[in-house]
Amino acid sequence: MIDLNSDLGEGFGAWTMGDDAALLEIVTSANIACGFHAGDPSIMRRTCALAVERGVRIGAHISYRDLAGFGRRAMAVGPRELADETLYQIGALDAFARAAGDRVRYVKPHGALYHSACGEREIADAVVSAVAEFGHLSVLGLPGSQLQAAAEAAGVPFHAEGFADRAYTPEATLVSRSKPGSVLEPEAALAQAISIAVDGATRTLEGAPVEVPARSLCVHGDSPGAVAMAKAIREALGAKGVELRAFA
Amino acid sequence: MIDLNSDLGEGFGAWTMGDDAALLEIVTSANIACGFHAGDPSIMRRTCALAVERGVRIGAHISYRDLAGFGRRAMAVGPRELADETLYQIGALDAFARAAGDRVRYVKPHGALYHSACGEREIADAVVSAVAEFGHLSVLGLPGSQLQAAAEAAGVPFHAEGFADRAYTPEATLVSRSKPGSVLEPEAALAQAISIAVDGATRTLEGAPVEVPARSLCVHGDSPGAVAMAKAIREALGAKGVELRAFA
Amino acid sequence: MIDLNSDLGEGFGAWTMGDDAALLEIVTSANIACGFHAGDPSIMRRTCALAVERGVRIGAHISYRDLAGFGRRAMAVGPRELADETLYQIGALDAFARAAGDRVRYVKPHGALYHSACGEREIADAVVSAVAEFGHLSVLGLPGSQLQAAAEAAGVPFHAEGFADRAYTPEATLVSRSKPGSVLEPEAALAQAISIAVDGATRTLEGAPVEVPARSLCVHGDSPGAVAMAKAIREALGAKGVELRAFA
Amino acid sequence: MIDLNSDLGEGFGAWTMGDDAALLEIVTSANIACGFHAGDPSIMRRTCALAVERGVRIGAHISYRDLAGFGRRAMAVGPRELADETLYQIGALDAFARAAGDRVRYVKPHGALYHSACGEREIADAVVSAVAEFGHLSVLGLPGSQLQAAAEAAGVPFHAEGFADRAYTPEATLVSRSKPGSVLEPEAALAQAISIAVDGATRTLEGAPVEVPARSLCVHGDSPGAVAMAKAIREALGAKGVELRAFA
Repeated sequence: MIDLNSDLGEGFGAWTMGDDAALLEIVTSANIACGFHAGDPSIMRRTCALAVERGVRIGAHISYRDLAGFGRRAMAVGPRELADETLYQIGALDAFARAAGDRVRYVKPHGALYHSACGEREIADAVVSAVAEFGHLSVLGLPGSQLQAAAEAAGVPFHAEGFADRAYTPEATLVSRSKPGSVLEPEAALAQAISIAVDGATRTLEGAPVEVPARSLCVHGDSPGAVAMAKAIREALGAKGVELRAFA
Repeated sequence: MIDLNSDLGEGFGAWTMGDDAALLEIVTSANIACGFHAGDPSIMRRTCALAVERGVRIGAHISYRDLAGFGRRAMAVGPRELADETLYQIGALDAFARAAGDRVRYVKPHGALYHSACGEREIADAVVSAVAEFGHLSVLGLPGSQLQAAAEAAGVPFHAEGFADRAYTPEATLVSRSKPGSVLEPEAALAQAISIAVDGATRTLEGAPVEVPARSLCVHGDSPGAVAMAKAIREALGAKGVELRAFA
Repeated sequence: MIDLNSDLGEGFGAWTMGDDAALLEIVTSANIACGFHAGDPSIMRRTCALAVERGVRIGAHISYRDLAGFGRRAMAVGPRELADETLYQIGALDAFARAAGDRVRYVKPHGALYHSACGEREIADAVVSAVAEFGHLSVLGLPGSQLQAAAEAAGVPFHAEGFADRAYTPEATLVSRSKPGSVLEPEAALAQAISIAVDGATRTLEGAPVEVPARSLCVHGDSPGAVAMAKAIREALGAKGVELRAFA
Repeated sequence: MIDLNSDLGEGFGAWTMGDDAALLEIVTSANIACGFHAGDPSIMRRTCALAVERGVRIGAHISYRDLAGFGRRAMAVGPRELADETLYQIGALDAFARAAGDRVRYVKPHGALYHSACGEREIADAVVSAVAEFGHLSVLGLPGSQLQAAAEAAGVPFHAEGFADRAYTPEATLVSRSKPGSVLEPEAALAQAISIAVDGATRTLEGAPVEVPARSLCVHGDSPGAVAMAKAIREALGAKGVELRAFA
């Protein structure tokens, strides 16, 4: 049993990003942008409505406030302010999730905030404090991360995710995108997706076994190739008898 | 019995606006900025917390998305998009209201949106549709306005407000700020506040009687003189035996 | 002899819009976004560099400050503030134009500002005042518009543009997009482009002749079909012996 | 001979910050916000006009794009993008400086960007590359900083500044604001201002002598006390026979 999650609702105003409709036929959980790196109120409403229609769970894809950088640039936001920005985004998205007949079920940090919240406990604590404050939410992130530690310390349910198309280090972290081989070719990505889903493990770039105890797999949809890959992963998991089911 | 409402939480980042702490000792309802014309997540949290501490009701002071213009410039936002922007702001503020132990109780449009929502039915309907969608909220606005008509048509409770320091036309609308005599001197404002609260009426610029059936009085706090005036209004109402009580 | 102009550099951050590289092979003048409705500093640099490389003239595509609405929503910006916003945008773009080895040569308002500057003299005067202040610039807009009147009154060179794919009214204004037949089919658009370029005239929706004394034709590139149309117009003009030459 | 510089034009829309008019009677160089951390086009115009009127030199106070954080939060902006953002801001401000009858004369990074440009060579190089590209500008920063090294490597004139009210380390850097004693009391600040201006040196927190070879002193104006201090520094320098003269 595994969940497939993807980043959705990442347009803004006149700009579009990715093929949300196609992805929502594939995934079981939707990380929906909340207006800080992408997503405007109308896109948030449409994406929530479509997710509920397809039975896909809604997660708040919270971010640093950085439209110009799409949330990909680390920012030295203090922990209190970060907790406040997190709560703001969850609250805004939840209004649309409720309008669509469901609720926000989980929170996943986006981009640079994902990186810092998984790696730095103070940042993880700030995010988790807002998640706990809002109530009835879980957190999605890297297994063994500071985000997991912070969630567990706060009594907030945590779910771990793996990546189909990213190479792993021996410590089960992701090989930096700047390094050769960090992004897997389609065939290898497909194999890794199945390996993580079935065995909770894969192999590092060097070929050593490494555990990736993931309850969800992150798939991308910002290119036609990406959607095809996500679809192939879904089908391959089905063929292996892996049940697709949202964690939240 | 009357309510006193004021615009609060109108700073942004390093910038401040008005004396929120002083106002929250005076008013019974706080129109709190939601990030579109003013207000950032940290200011929203602080203002909500202080309001709850003082027993002041929290309202969402929704606005066009226009930080540079402080929401004072009319914008041709389509009705669907406006409904979405309204729902976004209510949801975001409600997260902080709940974190402070209460809820958003009502919605009052700000600046240019107040003007257009009171004057144009299509805009009023858009705002009210989001208010109704969120649920358990009332609307605050001008008596006899399109906003009142829209709220009543949608079955959303509406509360009318009067202005102490603004001159009224024979039609019970406000004399435009661009006209001489549109803003009353302190003494006249005080008298008008009492007249509206006690008699539900005042006199126009020309001296004719005009009905202003208000359940709330709007007071300002963006200058030391404004705070003193608000305080004087509160005291004068008390001396007249008018009970101060939030409508929401 | 005619100029072909197109809106370029309309991405923002991670978001793209249109096929700038393809358009820059076709047009002679580039209306480059300046950051208010689209365009960030890096996109502005790239677009200016590419325009200069191709010998395409650089124009400042100024807009209301409205990223969320892509500058398509009318805003009640006062004339002084609008002049200031215009000057800001021209100055910013000129830095990149100069870095690329040229200068901003003209100014064309975008979207809602184009509409209001062509239709309202006070707004046209505000825009033109900043254009005159910056110096050495011309203005591009609708023939017979308030923008033309304001430019002429200020001694700023004005160039008129026509539209290949938009139907004209008997008054030589554009039929509103909300009306049926307002956007011409490819074949009709091609014919209209040639007619405007060769004869300075076309026919209204009802078939009556109407003068369109244009020094430039506006072509679009935000879809594959649009680029093909722009290319077809360029080729058809060449076949008719019309010389393509920038006005600025 | 020394220059006095101050951060000016740091309001935004309806929000104000500091007493610009008072400061412009005191300083010889104005670091004017360019819209990224503060400053909107109308404030930029007014501040440039007032500076020129008072004979105060105009500098571009460039920043990370962060209105919500007032440019005080470090951001991981890549060097190319940072150079582009720098050029954008200089170009925009220069349009107003020229409208007022002068030009931008120098560039000083603001807040978090000041810190990172003084401390990291790659960031300093990015800023300086845009300064060099624009042409005819100098750079203002900490003596001995990476910003100085980058400017000198690029052949861009560099001017060093000292701080009246900040304690110095033995390495002539500023003691972090988080440490006790980092901000000097008025009397000590006055003495340090004179010492830096007259002797090019001061004493560290521990009392050891330290060289501060400054051509300019930075004074603040965001509180009534700050303006009084700036005025006292100006008068004390005059009494000591130090000539106040802009460096640019």
